Amino acid sequence: MLAWGAVAPAQAAAPQKPARLGLCAACHGETGMAQIPGAPNLAGQQLDYLREALKQYRDGRRNVPLMRAAIGPMSDADLDELARWYSAQTPAHQGNP
Amino acid sequence: MLAWGAVAPAQAAAPQKPARLGLCAACHGETGMAQIPGAPNLAGQQLDYLREALKQYRDGRRNVPLMRAAIGPMSDADLDELARWYSAQTPAHQGNP
Repeated sequence: MLAWGAVAPAQAAAPQKPARLGLCAACHGETGMAQIPGAPNLAGQQLDYLREALKQYRDGRRNVPLMRAAIGPMSDADLDELARWYSAQTPAHQGNP
Repeated sequence: MLAWGAVAPAQAAAPQKPARLGLCAACHGETGMAQIPGAPNLAGQQLDYLREALKQYRDGRRNVPLMRAAIGPMSDADLDELARWYSAQTPAHQGNP
């Protein structure tokens, strides 16, 4: 008997991996855990906060040239997809100094 | 027999609750999980990122009047204590839309 009922609804609702994730992942990781000093973790961050922060990086209110260069060419839909992806990740436990 | 050896080193190393935590906690929670729309989670955030963000809110590079008002009167030592506190918290799992 096929156990089709075993597909977890929570997993079915998780966002698909964004097409533009690679650039972000270099510093923030694919699952939103920072890979380099100075970069924030994004895993599980509030969706509305991520959306607003991305807008601020794109328009220069948060003046971080690297982020502006990375985000500038992206569409609103791209940014929304990335915000949803990172917000949906579960933070990994990590030691902090 | 006294089980003094049962004190976990990890707990012993955790920072003490900062004296100025109350103001922050109104929006970010005592353990760094956001309490209001628009506020970010801070639990487990990278320590260097939190320190830099706090400086930027205080000097206006991140122009958020509420944050500037909250942080302006605080000393560097206060800010460092708060950054350490929130960085040491473990993010709670939460649903995101």
